[in-house]
Amino acid sequence: MTLKIGVIGTGAIGRDHIRRITSNLSGGRITAVTDVNEAAANAVVEQYGLDAVVYPDDQSLLAEGDIDAVLVTSWGPAHEQSVLAAIEAGKYVFCEKPLATTAEGCRRIMDAEIKHGKRLVQVGFMRRYDSGYVQLKQAIDEHVIGEPLMIRCAHRNPESGPNYTSDMAITDTLIHEIDVLHWLLGDDYKSVQVSYPRKTRHALSHMRDPQVVLLETNGGVLITAEIFVNCRYGYDIQCEVIGEDGIVKLPEPSSISLRKEAMFGTRILMDWKDRFIEAYDREIQDFIDSVGRGELQGPTAWDGYIAAVTADACVKAQESGQREEIELDEKPALYEGQAVGQA
Amino acid sequence: MTLKIGVIGTGAIGRDHIRRITSNLSGGRITAVTDVNEAAANAVVEQYGLDAVVYPDDQSLLAEGDIDAVLVTSWGPAHEQSVLAAIEAGKYVFCEKPLATTAEGCRRIMDAEIKHGKRLVQVGFMRRYDSGYVQLKQAIDEHVIGEPLMIRCAHRNPESGPNYTSDMAITDTLIHEIDVLHWLLGDDYKSVQVSYPRKTRHALSHMRDPQVVLLETNGGVLITAEIFVNCRYGYDIQCEVIGEDGIVKLPEPSSISLRKEAMFGTRILMDWKDRFIEAYDREIQDFIDSVGRGELQGPTAWDGYIAAVTADACVKAQESGQREEIELDEKPALYEGQAVGQA
Amino acid sequence: MTLKIGVIGTGAIGRDHIRRITSNLSGGRITAVTDVNEAAANAVVEQYGLDAVVYPDDQSLLAEGDIDAVLVTSWGPAHEQSVLAAIEAGKYVFCEKPLATTAEGCRRIMDAEIKHGKRLVQVGFMRRYDSGYVQLKQAIDEHVIGEPLMIRCAHRNPESGPNYTSDMAITDTLIHEIDVLHWLLGDDYKSVQVSYPRKTRHALSHMRDPQVVLLETNGGVLITAEIFVNCRYGYDIQCEVIGEDGIVKLPEPSSISLRKEAMFGTRILMDWKDRFIEAYDREIQDFIDSVGRGELQGPTAWDGYIAAVTADACVKAQESGQREEIELDEKPALYEGQAVGQA
Amino acid sequence: MTLKIGVIGTGAIGRDHIRRITSNLSGGRITAVTDVNEAAANAVVEQYGLDAVVYPDDQSLLAEGDIDAVLVTSWGPAHEQSVLAAIEAGKYVFCEKPLATTAEGCRRIMDAEIKHGKRLVQVGFMRRYDSGYVQLKQAIDEHVIGEPLMIRCAHRNPESGPNYTSDMAITDTLIHEIDVLHWLLGDDYKSVQVSYPRKTRHALSHMRDPQVVLLETNGGVLITAEIFVNCRYGYDIQCEVIGEDGIVKLPEPSSISLRKEAMFGTRILMDWKDRFIEAYDREIQDFIDSVGRGELQGPTAWDGYIAAVTADACVKAQESGQREEIELDEKPALYEGQAVGQA
Repeated sequence: MTLKIGVIGTGAIGRDHIRRITSNLSGGRITAVTDVNEAAANAVVEQYGLDAVVYPDDQSLLAEGDIDAVLVTSWGPAHEQSVLAAIEAGKYVFCEKPLATTAEGCRRIMDAEIKHGKRLVQVGFMRRYDSGYVQLKQAIDEHVIGEPLMIRCAHRNPESGPNYTSDMAITDTLIHEIDVLHWLLGDDYKSVQVSYPRKTRHALSHMRDPQVVLLETNGGVLITAEIFVNCRYGYDIQCEVIGEDGIVKLPEPSSISLRKEAMFGTRILMDWKDRFIEAYDREIQDFIDSVGRGELQGPTAWDGYIAAVTADACVKAQESGQREEIELDEKPALYEGQAVGQA
Repeated sequence: MTLKIGVIGTGAIGRDHIRRITSNLSGGRITAVTDVNEAAANAVVEQYGLDAVVYPDDQSLLAEGDIDAVLVTSWGPAHEQSVLAAIEAGKYVFCEKPLATTAEGCRRIMDAEIKHGKRLVQVGFMRRYDSGYVQLKQAIDEHVIGEPLMIRCAHRNPESGPNYTSDMAITDTLIHEIDVLHWLLGDDYKSVQVSYPRKTRHALSHMRDPQVVLLETNGGVLITAEIFVNCRYGYDIQCEVIGEDGIVKLPEPSSISLRKEAMFGTRILMDWKDRFIEAYDREIQDFIDSVGRGELQGPTAWDGYIAAVTADACVKAQESGQREEIELDEKPALYEGQAVGQA
Repeated sequence: MTLKIGVIGTGAIGRDHIRRITSNLSGGRITAVTDVNEAAANAVVEQYGLDAVVYPDDQSLLAEGDIDAVLVTSWGPAHEQSVLAAIEAGKYVFCEKPLATTAEGCRRIMDAEIKHGKRLVQVGFMRRYDSGYVQLKQAIDEHVIGEPLMIRCAHRNPESGPNYTSDMAITDTLIHEIDVLHWLLGDDYKSVQVSYPRKTRHALSHMRDPQVVLLETNGGVLITAEIFVNCRYGYDIQCEVIGEDGIVKLPEPSSISLRKEAMFGTRILMDWKDRFIEAYDREIQDFIDSVGRGELQGPTAWDGYIAAVTADACVKAQESGQREEIELDEKPALYEGQAVGQA
Repeated sequence: MTLKIGVIGTGAIGRDHIRRITSNLSGGRITAVTDVNEAAANAVVEQYGLDAVVYPDDQSLLAEGDIDAVLVTSWGPAHEQSVLAAIEAGKYVFCEKPLATTAEGCRRIMDAEIKHGKRLVQVGFMRRYDSGYVQLKQAIDEHVIGEPLMIRCAHRNPESGPNYTSDMAITDTLIHEIDVLHWLLGDDYKSVQVSYPRKTRHALSHMRDPQVVLLETNGGVLITAEIFVNCRYGYDIQCEVIGEDGIVKLPEPSSISLRKEAMFGTRILMDWKDRFIEAYDREIQDFIDSVGRGELQGPTAWDGYIAAVTADACVKAQESGQREEIELDEKPALYEGQAVGQA
């Protein structure tokens, strides 16, 4: 029962998913690809020796492709249209974040999915598949630390690119914390405030870096999230959940330890791609398996909508310097009782 | 050259200093004691076999005692009067925190000391003598992490007593962070804001616990300080300084590690008295040695004043829920160029 | 190009490989199975919904099966015959350890493979695929610690079964260290001595536990290997390589940390199957990929022979209490220049 | 009740003890000093501003000095004579290791002490006062890990001096493990064997380095002790006790942690003097306090004798390459029931 998969967008992340489906994972096969740059799409077919048809656009791929599901891995502003078209075509769709660039776009996708009557959309929040976060969630759910009261987390990159702007600290970076913490806690956000510490000399002149985001959930959990995209020393994801009876903390990535030259240390990753490589594998394998069973269990369009609304409020708080409220629509019945992550 | 020391206040901390001077440290001898409870003072003399005179009050001890210096270890509201009397008598004085219960009280003490023309007062902020904090300060001063940008710290106790109130989270607990972070950074505070996460079920009904205090320094360093006095799991002091080029973090207290019953762990202290026991020794030894050399180098009355002003603003921020400004007087010349801690 | 794979032996490890090929890995498909217990073989086909033929024995599977390669996952004494038959049939064969139960058996397999003229056999030493060991090897090969001088390692299980005997500490347990350390160092063994510490009260009366094995390599590296199969507290694999310029050590398995009840700790695994689960995946994926390329790169029959000869000497040393020499035949040209592990 | 102390030998360790008694510790005062180099003795008196008489030799110091106790901190071969003279004079004596350079010398000291009828001698094995070892002993004594079965330890120095010879790995280096492990276990040694791994290129040509010593106790505990005095990376003391129910391990020295340049690490000490600085303080304070109470509780002459006999056997094993037996005399009644370390 090999799943036939079309890929819309053959940039870096699209190629990476094609590679893992072709070389690492079980049960999937790339049968159709498309990219705004058709030469790129052709090159990918050749590079991985795919038995796949190259289509000129997402519409023709969805209409004519021999596919059971699609991956939407184009650039963000194109996601909404491709996801809507996939739903229209009744195809399962895995969409990289963001689901849409606006909360309204996410609502349109939910409306289409609700009209279809069944979940077809999984959003690419891969951290829910990271073994460290899975352990954290299990500990919280088993009440190892009692009720969570606070979370301290940090998202650090060695260096940001020249096009990185202050709001991308929210929309490109914090967006992963927004999803994974809401999932960890089984709770939504109520308000947000952003503070700016002294700026690092390593940041470009047009941007603020680091930033500290204070998020409060409906349940009263206070989250202190540091975003620091020019921290120099490594790619470092920290998360610590402080509860009534104890504290659980995300592990450091596994590394041999070294005693040398008066130091005892472990290595810190420099490249974000190495940090969640296994989570990406599990995420796509779960999508393939879930489609095979006919029942998605990964992050939903509703999760994509929550991320969009919350990110909007965070950006507003960046600008206002004030506490901003976060208000969600009523949760549609389709998303009630949905598993919000893997077991 | 044994220093003759009088002790004003023979409660828990007073007795503890008498014990260390008598049994652990070099160069000091207790020659005079007083306490509002004279029986308690007599009992201490007996318990430690002191060759010391018991006086009815601080005035008579200062007037008649055969002393070179005094320790003020009475309860907080009595500190100001004893310190002023000691300065008046021209005696060196080590005063436990708080130096005075109000900023005005601290100013009166500074004025008296300035009038005397020379430093006589050391305030009991012992963390500056903790080897972990000393290492942190050295790393910052040697620019190991570049300019500090943020500090994340936590002050956790297993359980608060029945008389503990929400404002004591500042005046009794955070007060140590207020001093030690200002010393670490060589910087003063500009503003403060307090947030209340969900309250732990382990806290008494009349209080807020935990609390998160956001302090900003004049240099732009953003400090996130968690105070959690019913955390249950241990007495735990955390401090992490995030700089432009790296991060330094306070060590955990030294503990053997244990592999047993599917866990690999170290012990967490439960009693705060064990955490800074060596820092207390070094602090009092430094006071004895400094008096011997005729030049104090520990925390000054100005440091005591900063702590008082900052704590006042924090308490105001607890009540207002708003960002509150912190404004200090001009720094008197007497305290310029003073070493603000041990080398 | 899906690889068609036959499985000889559908016990625990056989079923586990069938599961991973079917559900986790890419490029392989089970097309034929056999087991001495034919009902067991049929049950596996049903359990995993395999499109596979059940054969009465390894001979018929190899003669008639639609297969490119076989996995030999039967019990140890049956390995040699199946591997020889696979070579005879010109099929690639992945054989779980031991390759054969005697050094002579391993020699017969090497002779057959040499006669065939090309490597067909990969032995199931999965630790070479564990990310921790791979990092250790890389550090050694990059001379991070200079020349290795000593290795300290431990292989600990919570509890041994009722049929576990003292020599199985070598043949079932230490055998993994024998292979992986020889691979880490690129060196062979010269001598061995076994010492018996005080016996744990948790061991059955007929056996010695723990045991300490001192191995010396031709290059002079001294290895201290502890085997402790009733250590109670967990399944724990330790390995530390001490070199001229520093020390590298295998990481602990990734675990969230917990602060609770006066302890700061991480979890220790209790079940060996959890420890190397990802290494098993990589090992079998590498076998599938290597067969696809027509060139094996995993552990060779020569590695299986080294393990057999070394284990024999270790068992002899268990009995004699003396230092025993380890002597290998000349290394056949077929195995020269072979990669002895993954890159 | 200040203890009046004479010091025999004002080299490095003698000066260090004078410094700590004068500046750090409570209850002692240096009243007499002597050294084979009288100018050195005079210089020390001046450096520390001592109110002490300089004597030409140990005999005159003991005969004429105004002393309650002496420290013997001369070079090793002179210890026996000074200790015997002190006992003859009825003075308490703290003697740095070795108590005597031969087992016979130690026996003569025990005989003299027995004849005197009361313990007068404490031997300078300071590790028993290190907080890490004290925690280990407490855990063992409280049966946290059940019966100890094995110990793995290492004693590493960055670099050995030009006069360091292979046997000094025992008599100068391992001697500390010999004492502290016998104390930890409450057990004596039965046999020893020495193995030589590949030699580091950093060792001088005349010596073997590293060395691995296998010690077996009467109770069957197997100790693997690595001595590596040119390890380059730091001064590093490791000790791990493996018991029936778990494992306890000595902590690393307390150090801030640093994240920088793709590494997460703590500092390793380079200088042995920093490692046990607090243990030295506690050791000498305990000697002063014990003399004050009239009852020594630190390491005894019997402990010094055990160390001498065991070291002799180790040196013999270095040369023979064989397992050598370790045989002690009957334990004299004076040393029965003696505390073998601090509580």
